[in-house]
Amino acid sequence: MRTELSRRLGIEHALFGFTPFPPVAAAISRAGGLGVLGAVRYTAPGELERDLDWMQAHTDGRPYGLDVVMPARTVPGLTEADVEAMIPDGHREFVRRTLAEHGVPELAEGERSGWRITGWLEDVARTQLDVAFDYPLALLANALGPPPADVIERAHSRGILVAALAGSARHAVRHAAAGVDIVVAQGYEAGGHTGEIATMVLTPEVVRAVDPLPVLAAGGIGSGEQIAAGLALGAQGVWLGSIWLTTAEAGLTSRALTAKLLAAGSGDTVRSRALTGKPARQLRTPWTDAWDAPDGPGTLPMPLQGLLVAEALSRIQKHEVVPLLGTPVGQIVGAMDTVRSVQAVVDDLTRGFERAVNRLNAVVGNRSAGRNGWAQRDHRPAGGDAPQEDTTS
Amino acid sequence: MRTELSRRLGIEHALFGFTPFPPVAAAISRAGGLGVLGAVRYTAPGELERDLDWMQAHTDGRPYGLDVVMPARTVPGLTEADVEAMIPDGHREFVRRTLAEHGVPELAEGERSGWRITGWLEDVARTQLDVAFDYPLALLANALGPPPADVIERAHSRGILVAALAGSARHAVRHAAAGVDIVVAQGYEAGGHTGEIATMVLTPEVVRAVDPLPVLAAGGIGSGEQIAAGLALGAQGVWLGSIWLTTAEAGLTSRALTAKLLAAGSGDTVRSRALTGKPARQLRTPWTDAWDAPDGPGTLPMPLQGLLVAEALSRIQKHEVVPLLGTPVGQIVGAMDTVRSVQAVVDDLTRGFERAVNRLNAVVGNRSAGRNGWAQRDHRPAGGDAPQEDTTS
Repeated sequence: MRTELSRRLGIEHALFGFTPFPPVAAAISRAGGLGVLGAVRYTAPGELERDLDWMQAHTDGRPYGLDVVMPARTVPGLTEADVEAMIPDGHREFVRRTLAEHGVPELAEGERSGWRITGWLEDVARTQLDVAFDYPLALLANALGPPPADVIERAHSRGILVAALAGSARHAVRHAAAGVDIVVAQGYEAGGHTGEIATMVLTPEVVRAVDPLPVLAAGGIGSGEQIAAGLALGAQGVWLGSIWLTTAEAGLTSRALTAKLLAAGSGDTVRSRALTGKPARQLRTPWTDAWDAPDGPGTLPMPLQGLLVAEALSRIQKHEVVPLLGTPVGQIVGAMDTVRSVQAVVDDLTRGFERAVNRLNAVVGNRSAGRNGWAQRDHRPAGGDAPQEDTTS
Repeated sequence: MRTELSRRLGIEHALFGFTPFPPVAAAISRAGGLGVLGAVRYTAPGELERDLDWMQAHTDGRPYGLDVVMPARTVPGLTEADVEAMIPDGHREFVRRTLAEHGVPELAEGERSGWRITGWLEDVARTQLDVAFDYPLALLANALGPPPADVIERAHSRGILVAALAGSARHAVRHAAAGVDIVVAQGYEAGGHTGEIATMVLTPEVVRAVDPLPVLAAGGIGSGEQIAAGLALGAQGVWLGSIWLTTAEAGLTSRALTAKLLAAGSGDTVRSRALTGKPARQLRTPWTDAWDAPDGPGTLPMPLQGLLVAEALSRIQKHEVVPLLGTPVGQIVGAMDTVRSVQAVVDDLTRGFERAVNRLNAVVGNRSAGRNGWAQRDHRPAGGDAPQEDTTS
């Protein structure tokens, strides 16, 4: 799966894999894609450095990237304590009551909250970047629009391409104007922060809007057929996040959560502000239902909501309160039915992609021109009847 | 664009065009697709017969189909008056007040409501079918799941294939069990009634669920690139509705509505129960906002809501109250920027499809095997470097 962009990055497949887990990111890069490590959870000093050292040692010299979360607009000097002070008491009370209703125990004395939102604050993201720029990153991605101008400059001066996620063509145009190199068009069906326009419509819209910048299709992509669809829509690559959550290398905090993901159908996610204050697709649980209920207090704006629920989510995870366990995940969760290695996932993706292109060639009346190990499936002489559709795939 | 299904139906392109306008349906069939005429607006005796006679005379012997709206569950003998009696006074008052707020004039004395819901009642649908079965239809589609068993039998005994729309794999399996021949997987981004699963995820899910039945991808498809995406996902054809609304042959009641469609962006639709009581994607207007507002009375179940708002919609249309003018339409409305003939649309679709397949062949490292008039774009000798991505398309 080679495109101009994959050649520019020196990767075998135009396949970008976002994940918070270094073993998954490294395995994606080793398998020929570009592993992109999510940095938002690295808040303690030394943690990011430790894991980037590990990435260096386990990527066999293949390129990899880092994903940070820098809001486009920030209040300079804002601290976590400032944000804490903005949270209304009524909302804290709602959290206490909802956890009590579901019998969620307290954290043990001294246990720190594993999932903090501090990574969402600009100071923290900048500290991460100071560490990250010491490593030979191939890509720096930002989940909340373009990074600040000086960050883009620092990246470019080190030969690092900058990518930004966009949920609408309007945002994509803004990102392009800010100087990003790649736009990730993140459709409605994606896990995590996402807009209302589906990938099928968003991808070509963003491709047109930022031409000639390369676009990655994101959202609804977890099979080779879906990769073919994304590239047919004009993308130069695909950005996959959810599919890695149930790989053997993933480090989910709980086996019960893996089991929930394997069991979930495509209709078991919800686009909710419960997690961060901005709409993000995630597993639907009684916890998200409580926040989305018309008689609830409503969610707070980012970053207040994330800070408000951080400890609650830690309590749910640490104590494995199964009904309330959730995670950002896209609608492809319905097709995530088995635990596979990252390499097996990538193999399935490339094989499925080739099958889909074969099928399209049959539809258009093309001979399947074998190359790169492709099976030649149509052996009839040229000029014969239109080939039958390939139904063996 | 040939698949097993298109060959079975004797059409040139695996392209199914749904439209309420006979000139559009006939032009789609003449252009090599399958025009499918929506029957829901035919409520007066003789009207459907007149338009099917016209279709016979204007399709040059090419196949065409009919789309009816038969609810899966009906109350036998239910009349429009019965349904009228179930509508609460508060809802009627909300309609009166909302129309008054926007200065919508009354209909003139004796003017009948142009848009009625009576076509949604089983009696009316059955009367339509008695007429329709006298014509050599190729396809009978039902927008609300599978038609009743005896209707499927009557269709099959006349060699007519039966299609049913599904918004989830669960519904698709039910349709298959009921004996339909084709499932239309209608994604979230589609115009009209639609579920929450996007086309990118829904299509392969339905393909797997009803295998070996053929599936049409619907929702988010208005370009050849999007057709390639739908077929890459495993569909044997695509079902397009919105794209025809701004064709030269379309008979929208108002030029102002055409202008609104041409101007609308992909974010200007909403999935609302305001029209029929079931979620249907349509242009977002102050009218849909009023129904979807948290302080409104809420919508009524189908078919009450449709009957409740029928006269209001007629008043808005007849008096061209531009801000309130709406229509079912999908997210592709953002790409509907010019009025073209149906033939020009089909030409663009087939060209765009071939471009997309060319691009995918370049990604996979295939030589573009020219046939059926394809340009051979890759002239390098086999065994050379991986071809550059085709950036000329």
